[in-house]
Amino acid sequence: MAGSSFGKQLVMTTWGESHGAGLGVVVDGCPAGLPISEEEIQVYLDRRKPGGRDFATPRQEADRVRILSGVFEGKTTGTPISMMIENTSQRSGDYGNLATTYRPGHADYGFDAKYGFRDYRGGGRSSGRETAGRVAAGAIAAKLLANIGVTVEAYVSAIGPVTIDPERFDPEEAAKNALCMPDAVAAAEASDYLKKLMEEQDSSGSEVTCIVRGLPAGIGEPVFDKLDAVLGHAIFSIGAVKAVQIGDGTDVVRARGSKNNDSFYMKEGAVAKKTNHAGGILGGISDGSDIVIRASFKPTPSIFREQETVTAAGEDTVLSIRGRHDPVIGPRASVVVEMMTAFAIADLYLCDRGSRI
Amino acid sequence: MAGSSFGKQLVMTTWGESHGAGLGVVVDGCPAGLPISEEEIQVYLDRRKPGGRDFATPRQEADRVRILSGVFEGKTTGTPISMMIENTSQRSGDYGNLATTYRPGHADYGFDAKYGFRDYRGGGRSSGRETAGRVAAGAIAAKLLANIGVTVEAYVSAIGPVTIDPERFDPEEAAKNALCMPDAVAAAEASDYLKKLMEEQDSSGSEVTCIVRGLPAGIGEPVFDKLDAVLGHAIFSIGAVKAVQIGDGTDVVRARGSKNNDSFYMKEGAVAKKTNHAGGILGGISDGSDIVIRASFKPTPSIFREQETVTAAGEDTVLSIRGRHDPVIGPRASVVVEMMTAFAIADLYLCDRGSRI
Amino acid sequence: MAGSSFGKQLVMTTWGESHGAGLGVVVDGCPAGLPISEEEIQVYLDRRKPGGRDFATPRQEADRVRILSGVFEGKTTGTPISMMIENTSQRSGDYGNLATTYRPGHADYGFDAKYGFRDYRGGGRSSGRETAGRVAAGAIAAKLLANIGVTVEAYVSAIGPVTIDPERFDPEEAAKNALCMPDAVAAAEASDYLKKLMEEQDSSGSEVTCIVRGLPAGIGEPVFDKLDAVLGHAIFSIGAVKAVQIGDGTDVVRARGSKNNDSFYMKEGAVAKKTNHAGGILGGISDGSDIVIRASFKPTPSIFREQETVTAAGEDTVLSIRGRHDPVIGPRASVVVEMMTAFAIADLYLCDRGSRI
Amino acid sequence: MAGSSFGKQLVMTTWGESHGAGLGVVVDGCPAGLPISEEEIQVYLDRRKPGGRDFATPRQEADRVRILSGVFEGKTTGTPISMMIENTSQRSGDYGNLATTYRPGHADYGFDAKYGFRDYRGGGRSSGRETAGRVAAGAIAAKLLANIGVTVEAYVSAIGPVTIDPERFDPEEAAKNALCMPDAVAAAEASDYLKKLMEEQDSSGSEVTCIVRGLPAGIGEPVFDKLDAVLGHAIFSIGAVKAVQIGDGTDVVRARGSKNNDSFYMKEGAVAKKTNHAGGILGGISDGSDIVIRASFKPTPSIFREQETVTAAGEDTVLSIRGRHDPVIGPRASVVVEMMTAFAIADLYLCDRGSRI
Repeated sequence: MAGSSFGKQLVMTTWGESHGAGLGVVVDGCPAGLPISEEEIQVYLDRRKPGGRDFATPRQEADRVRILSGVFEGKTTGTPISMMIENTSQRSGDYGNLATTYRPGHADYGFDAKYGFRDYRGGGRSSGRETAGRVAAGAIAAKLLANIGVTVEAYVSAIGPVTIDPERFDPEEAAKNALCMPDAVAAAEASDYLKKLMEEQDSSGSEVTCIVRGLPAGIGEPVFDKLDAVLGHAIFSIGAVKAVQIGDGTDVVRARGSKNNDSFYMKEGAVAKKTNHAGGILGGISDGSDIVIRASFKPTPSIFREQETVTAAGEDTVLSIRGRHDPVIGPRASVVVEMMTAFAIADLYLCDRGSRI
Repeated sequence: MAGSSFGKQLVMTTWGESHGAGLGVVVDGCPAGLPISEEEIQVYLDRRKPGGRDFATPRQEADRVRILSGVFEGKTTGTPISMMIENTSQRSGDYGNLATTYRPGHADYGFDAKYGFRDYRGGGRSSGRETAGRVAAGAIAAKLLANIGVTVEAYVSAIGPVTIDPERFDPEEAAKNALCMPDAVAAAEASDYLKKLMEEQDSSGSEVTCIVRGLPAGIGEPVFDKLDAVLGHAIFSIGAVKAVQIGDGTDVVRARGSKNNDSFYMKEGAVAKKTNHAGGILGGISDGSDIVIRASFKPTPSIFREQETVTAAGEDTVLSIRGRHDPVIGPRASVVVEMMTAFAIADLYLCDRGSRI
Repeated sequence: MAGSSFGKQLVMTTWGESHGAGLGVVVDGCPAGLPISEEEIQVYLDRRKPGGRDFATPRQEADRVRILSGVFEGKTTGTPISMMIENTSQRSGDYGNLATTYRPGHADYGFDAKYGFRDYRGGGRSSGRETAGRVAAGAIAAKLLANIGVTVEAYVSAIGPVTIDPERFDPEEAAKNALCMPDAVAAAEASDYLKKLMEEQDSSGSEVTCIVRGLPAGIGEPVFDKLDAVLGHAIFSIGAVKAVQIGDGTDVVRARGSKNNDSFYMKEGAVAKKTNHAGGILGGISDGSDIVIRASFKPTPSIFREQETVTAAGEDTVLSIRGRHDPVIGPRASVVVEMMTAFAIADLYLCDRGSRI
Repeated sequence: MAGSSFGKQLVMTTWGESHGAGLGVVVDGCPAGLPISEEEIQVYLDRRKPGGRDFATPRQEADRVRILSGVFEGKTTGTPISMMIENTSQRSGDYGNLATTYRPGHADYGFDAKYGFRDYRGGGRSSGRETAGRVAAGAIAAKLLANIGVTVEAYVSAIGPVTIDPERFDPEEAAKNALCMPDAVAAAEASDYLKKLMEEQDSSGSEVTCIVRGLPAGIGEPVFDKLDAVLGHAIFSIGAVKAVQIGDGTDVVRARGSKNNDSFYMKEGAVAKKTNHAGGILGGISDGSDIVIRASFKPTPSIFREQETVTAAGEDTVLSIRGRHDPVIGPRASVVVEMMTAFAIADLYLCDRGSRI
């Protein structure tokens, strides 16, 4: 398939560019009878909305989601749920030399090599705005999971050199500060760091952590559609992600088996694990523990410094990017990680349990 | 789908368990007219064969691949290529308490939770032997890529605390030593480290690096089937992988945009990049540079030390694993990483260019 | 997948119900650079629009298609093309006892058995209006095919006992009369027949014939995705179709091999066939001749006569359907047959030739 | 995908050519715990085996199926079931001019147009022998369906001008005569007809009817994956099928709604229908009645008469086919229709109910 769809039993298909009529998503395969409203979905969209927080771009978009089909009398009908977010603030705009110059760190050159030309307005299809549809789709998956007692939660765990301190971990704090960090001290430090970078016309990398709680053992397929493989696909499909880790992640390289193996034991009549180095997945199948995923985001490639690059005509040139750009990607992307995770897990759950849950 | 297939235009379907009649793979969608022989495929299978090297299990399996269909007069016909590797050394064996006890770090518990029972002989379907079929399929993909000037190469870049030194990097060395490390000094150090661990009845984690050279710009789909997303799926589908990194990987968290962005410039009439922090992928599409992937493998979970665990009947117990087990996964898995990478890239190439290359 | 998508390389996903906000479709996988406009698509939609012809329902819908994404400066960009048709005439309506009574010949009972409840307004998702999205998607496929010299044309070949006469065949006539029959005499006879049926509060079956010209030999896959298998899937997915025939269709049962085999011969340097009993497909692959498909449509199930049926509560009852209903399905469905055929063939063409045509 | 796979939750992938090492199939997605044996599968394979009956080719093949994976201690494990049938009687043979001459009514020309060359031995991949794998896969689906009370049965309903008489219908008779006709008188007449044709070096068309009993209402997806659309795909994917009919099939063209609509009524507390013109499917969803499908097979294209055709080099020529060929396809294909029907229905059932039945 052509790559704008994700999932097997629960499938989302996104469409839309940054500066076209709008963005949207069609969710096919959602079981019938799930109560869902535009308001519930909007809560997630507001988390990725720019303009509401200190370090996000000042672009003021309403980003109001509208359900166009598949919901009748407040409940899903089992037929495709189409959702749309209109692009309200699209300017007929001056895109300067973006049509003919390749921005470093962006997909411009690849698009031209692939398609011969591209919609250069605001990054077109490769804009971060494409994720609005994913978030709307993920909100339905999250509701589905909530109904079976599964929760998914993502937050920013590092920005540049600033990492959250497990001892100060406060989940409610993540919803309070502009950087979505569950540690007020770290958030303040990261804030200072970002201000400094902005003065230097630079940007920072970041890390998002996502935790799935309550997933029963047995979800995921043993070979190519391992739970971690599908999650890896889902998370790497978010722009700017350069690493995905499950459980102890890259630390396993230096680990020993005797430490890395999580011992099983019986706890209140159920199988439990004494540790969770595996991040809740063994052999591609959930083991009943929390699923722990980390995504490493590269620094925002759109920086205001002058950069060396080339034109579509094949000439060396120098580019100065203008406009509205966040100095860090993680804070707005954390809800996208959360929603892609929710969607991937709901899909594998339905593959296992069928469409009548 | 049920998860034993991988790919869209070029599709492999693997089958087989560790101790059944054999293992195999069906490759569908390979263009017609590609010259291929059992001997060419066997070269790759021999790289993952146990018994040939110091730190690999002494099990002596022939692992001879047989082409059963899809090749006529030495060339692919465009129809499915079925390949089989018979299990020759399967013992009717004593599996002790493996049928009823969950090995820590393994999928046993997940299988029982998912299917109600499992083929416990040698790990059944979750055995590393399942990858034999993948390697055979990847060999065909590698031949396809070679025909268009693309090469794929994987090696072990770290074992426990021992990391290869770029200054000593020697690609031919990787084929010479038992640990597949392209650095003789590091290989010797890692060898000492593993010997010590084996005495302690323990195992080590490892890292495999894979490099794709010669891939033109424009391969990969911009949204869900980004080149990195499909590679992430492919690599995470290999057992024991806990992290996948593209280019600078987790280091991007601490990076700044001004350093992380790779500048474009014209080189002999073609677009080139001055650096390759991106690992050859921008916005999910190849940019013409080398693709650089790293996979972190956890330590072999089968260790000889006594481990705490539970039985299928829900009782705490203690398990002592016997048998043949490598103390590190990377050396034998490196060819699997290479072959999954080759297959994923060949598939995306065919999606872009059609089935008549 | 959940069944609202069709195609492999060229994929359409439809959404929407008869009486919701609107209907739409997302087309993914269309090659970049194809010139397309809303006006070109509208031509096809107008052919299935009710209200414009004698025997169609008087419902006055604008059915204006709007392209929401994937087209930039008049050309496709290679990214998903989202199209929407708003439901303008939806009445808040009185649906009488349709929520609780199963209409004979309709999917009402099946929906309740499957989903537990249903959007009963105007048939919901199973309404013929769902095909509006398919027609819009097919229009893009038709443009793609036109660019490579392939044309697709469908017309009504029979209504009840009235069949078109090959001697009077006039392709332009089909566009002139209300019944889409390429034979003015047959159209007049069928018109009289339908008037009589309407007086009797009854409806008629019909047959649509579709012809594809200019398709090169070699399209279609030899086993499960035979050209005829994919066309069969496509045409049977249109509501009310009860039979699909390729070439001589059911007549082959009484045929002999010596007559049914089409002899090959050389014609102006190219392979040609003396007859076309096969309808252009041999072994699932196009043979360069015209593809000939026929679809048998059952009589419109919504008739005004009193009918015996049951309620959702499990009681026998009598139902009288009111509202707007055509007495025959073929005339408005012919463009749907044409568009599904165009889409299926364009998809298989892209599977064979890649996404860069 | 490349077209050698069928199904979504329950997927079969066939491989193999007429004269290679063998034929096979991998079935992925079968729920765990289903008891199955090679003997049960062999029963179905024996029904399509040549040599056992008067009008079938005298080729003596054992066609013994071997289960290579996915079954442990007599039950399916949930992992892929690989099955193989070795080609025992492959002669190194003299294929005469078949490598360079296109047989009328066969796929030879299409294969060359598509792939550039082909395995011409015995028809290669387009041989009827490819269906052996389908039959083995269908046998598993049939067992799965039997477990939930669903039976599938196919027989020959017409050969040339001879049609079975409903008044003489005897299901057990179909298993007794060489032509699989459930009417001894019709079988005798058809036998005479075929003998006459064979003397004339000619062949006959035929019709196969398939009936599914016990399927609950609610199976099938409402839009593109309607139950009839998936069945149409399945049946048209069998070589030589030129028409597929559901219920009243082509007769609906002349029907009236008042007759064609099946009235619902309550029967012993359950919804039932007074007639079954619909063949058990309304709006693409099963309605609880018997599913009735008919497939029209063209006459065997391999006839011994001299036929006009062309060579691959583009010259007119005359071809005389030799070897072993049945004069009619239906009798041996009836089990293939039955098995493809069973597989398609089991797949849609699992899509609806999940993988844990």
